[in-house]
Amino acid sequence: MTMDVTFLGTGSAYPSPHRGASALVLRTEGECWLFDCGEGTQTQLMKSQLRAGRITKVFISHLHGDHLFGLPGLLCTVSLNTNPDSAENLSCVHIYGPRGLRNFLRVSLGLTGSQLLFPYAVHELEPTPDQSPAEGYLSLEMTAEHGSLHPQERLGRSIPLDVSNDCYLLFEDKKFVVKAFRLFHRIPSFGFCIQEHDRPGRLKTEVLKELGVKPGPLYGRLKAGEALTLDNGRVVLPSEVLEEAVPGRKVCILGDCSAVLGLQPLRLCRGADILVHEATLGREHRDKAVEHGHSTPDMAAAVARACCAHRLVLYHFSQRYKPSSLLKDGEEDSVSELRRQAEEALQDSGVEVTLAEDFLTLPIPLRRPR
Amino acid sequence: MTMDVTFLGTGSAYPSPHRGASALVLRTEGECWLFDCGEGTQTQLMKSQLRAGRITKVFISHLHGDHLFGLPGLLCTVSLNTNPDSAENLSCVHIYGPRGLRNFLRVSLGLTGSQLLFPYAVHELEPTPDQSPAEGYLSLEMTAEHGSLHPQERLGRSIPLDVSNDCYLLFEDKKFVVKAFRLFHRIPSFGFCIQEHDRPGRLKTEVLKELGVKPGPLYGRLKAGEALTLDNGRVVLPSEVLEEAVPGRKVCILGDCSAVLGLQPLRLCRGADILVHEATLGREHRDKAVEHGHSTPDMAAAVARACCAHRLVLYHFSQRYKPSSLLKDGEEDSVSELRRQAEEALQDSGVEVTLAEDFLTLPIPLRRPR
Ligand SMILES: [Zn+2]
Ligand SMILES: [Zn+2]
Ligand SMILES: [Zn+2]
Ligand SMILES: [Zn+2]
Repeated sequence: MTMDVTFLGTGSAYPSPHRGASALVLRTEGECWLFDCGEGTQTQLMKSQLRAGRITKVFISHLHGDHLFGLPGLLCTVSLNTNPDSAENLSCVHIYGPRGLRNFLRVSLGLTGSQLLFPYAVHELEPTPDQSPAEGYLSLEMTAEHGSLHPQERLGRSIPLDVSNDCYLLFEDKKFVVKAFRLFHRIPSFGFCIQEHDRPGRLKTEVLKELGVKPGPLYGRLKAGEALTLDNGRVVLPSEVLEEAVPGRKVCILGDCSAVLGLQPLRLCRGADILVHEATLGREHRDKAVEHGHSTPDMAAAVARACCAHRLVLYHFSQRYKPSSLLKDGEEDSVSELRRQAEEALQDSGVEVTLAEDFLTLPIPLRRPR
Repeated sequence: MTMDVTFLGTGSAYPSPHRGASALVLRTEGECWLFDCGEGTQTQLMKSQLRAGRITKVFISHLHGDHLFGLPGLLCTVSLNTNPDSAENLSCVHIYGPRGLRNFLRVSLGLTGSQLLFPYAVHELEPTPDQSPAEGYLSLEMTAEHGSLHPQERLGRSIPLDVSNDCYLLFEDKKFVVKAFRLFHRIPSFGFCIQEHDRPGRLKTEVLKELGVKPGPLYGRLKAGEALTLDNGRVVLPSEVLEEAVPGRKVCILGDCSAVLGLQPLRLCRGADILVHEATLGREHRDKAVEHGHSTPDMAAAVARACCAHRLVLYHFSQRYKPSSLLKDGEEDSVSELRRQAEEALQDSGVEVTLAEDFLTLPIPLRRPR
C-alpha cells in the first residue's frame, strides 16, 4: 500500500503568498487524511495533485486560527463539488480536535447557512490544564454548544485522556490505529501518532506446493494467521509457510508546541518513519519561540532523537523565512539555516532532516521485514 | 481627494487559484474600507498594493462563507502586524453586516484564543423575512450571543430598517454618508451606498480681493458656508465668492442577489459613479442563477439602467468563467461573454460596463461642478 505525506502549508501565524498556513495530507490508497486546515487550504489543495473530495478524516492539532480557519470553507467547497446524485451514500467525515471544535464548526456552518451534502461528526479531545498557561485553557462555558446540531452533523464522541497510557485513542480500523498525545503550547495542542498494523509476510509458495496445499481459500486463511489441518492429518502453522511479517509504518505529526508532555508519548512515537515537528524560529530566537509556545530546530531535534525517528521533517516556519527559491543574493534568514541547526543537533543520531515546503510530497516506503 | 476601488476577489462560491473569493476595497486618502472578506482575502491583500493595516471599516453584504470566512483571519493578521507599542491609540475597527455576524466573530475569535491589539465593534443590520426564502432567515435563537464580549469587542449597534426610506443608515461623517438597502438572495443580503458629501467650490480670489477680504481665517469661514459682514458693513455671501459646488461621488456595492427589494434603493443609487453588481452566470443559465439567488449580466444591467449609473462593474463570476488571460484556444465560457451580454442590455443607455478581475483598481475621479 502506498503512503505519502504532502505539505499544503508550511508557514506559521498566517498564510502568505509564499507559504500557506498549516495543513498537510497523509494519503493512503485513495483516502486522504487532513492534518490542520489553515486559511487557504482549499486553494492549496486545488493547486496540488490531491483531491479534496477524497478527504475522509480531519485532525486539528489545536484551535489557533492558522490551523483552523480554512476548515469551514473547505467542507463547503468539498460539498459543492460533490455530485448530488451520489450524495445519499456519502460516508461521514470524521473530524478530531480539541474541545471547542464542535461549537466552532456548528456556529461557522450554521450562521453562514452552509448546507453540506455529506454528514460530519466532531470528536473532541479533552485537554488538561497543564497543556498551556492558564489563560489558554477554554472554560466549559466557552465551548458549550447551544441549540441543536447542524443538519448534517452527527453526534461525535468526547475523548478523555487515557491516563494510564498518557494518550487518547482516536480510533482503530483494519489498517491503522491512531492515537493523540498532549503538547504544551499557548493553548492546548496535540500530536498524532498514526500506526499502521503489521502485515503478514508473503506466502512461501514452494513450501505450500510441497505440502500439497493448493492456491485458493486456504492460502487466505493461512495468511490471516489460521492453522490448517490437511486431509492427511498434517497441521500447517502460518509461521511455516509465511515469510517474516512486514512491520507497519508509523507517522507522527505534532502540532505547535514548546514541549511534549510526559514520557509515554515519546515511546508511542518510537521509531517513527516520519516525525513532523514545528520549528518556528531559529535557535538564536529561542526565548521568543518558547515565550510563544513554539520550538526551535534544536528542540525539534531533541524530540526526534528521544524517539529515534528515522526522519525529522520541520515545518511551521515563521513567515520571515522565505523559501530558499525566493531569496535574493545576500538575504539572510534563509530557511536552510533551520535545517543546519537541526542537523547539527542530530549529529551521529542517524536521524535524517527534511525541510518541508508547500507542495512537497514525501513517500513513506514499506518497511522491510524484521 | 483620491478615491478608488480595488477588487481582491471576483469569484463566486469559493476561492480558486485564478479567482479569489469576494472582497473589494474602497480607498480614500489613506483609509481602506473592506467590502466582504472571503477566505484568502488577507493573502490577496498582501499581493495587492493595499495595506491591510489601513482597514478602518468592514462591510459584510451577507453571511455566506465566500464573503465571510476570511474575516477572523484577516483581523488576526492585521493585529499581528501592528506595532504593540503604538497599540494604545489604535482606533476601533467598525464592522457592519447582517444579524449573526457579531456571534460569528465572537465565537471564531474566542474559541481560537485570538487576541487583537485593537478594539472592534460589530453593528448588525436587522434583515426582514422577505429578503430570502424562509429557510434562509436566521432565527433569533441562532444569532443570540452567549457569554461575555470578546476582550477586544466593543458593544455595537443594532440597526433596524428605516421603513420610511427603505434603507439602513450606517453612519455619517464629515466626508460620507453610508447607507445599506435590502437585496433578495438565498439568505438576507445587502447593498451599500457610499455617498460623498458635496464640497464647496473654489474661492473666487479675484472677487475677494476686490471686496478687500484678505487670505486667512475669513476664507475658511466663507468656504464653510458662513456669511461675513465686513468692517465697511458690506455683507459677503458665500455664493458670491465661491465657484460652483463639486458634487460628491457615489459608489454602490451590491452583495449577492437576484433582486433589489423596493424602489427606493434604486433612487438611493441614482447616478452612481460606479455600481458594483454580481453576475454569477450568463443569461443562458438564468433559471439556475435565479434559483440560487444570483443574477445574470442582463439582470445586473437592468439595475444599472434603472438607477442611471455611470458605470456598471460586474463581479462574483462562477468559477467556470476563467479570466480571459487563462483561456486556451477554443475554450468556451469566456468571461468576456458576460460583458457582451451586459453591454447588449445597456445599448443606448450610456452606462459603461467593466468586468472586474482580481487586483483591478478603478479610480473614481472627482466630479465636475454642476
Ligand atoms: Zn501555528
Ligand atoms: Zn499555535
Ligand atoms: Zn457569493
Ligand atoms: Zn451568497
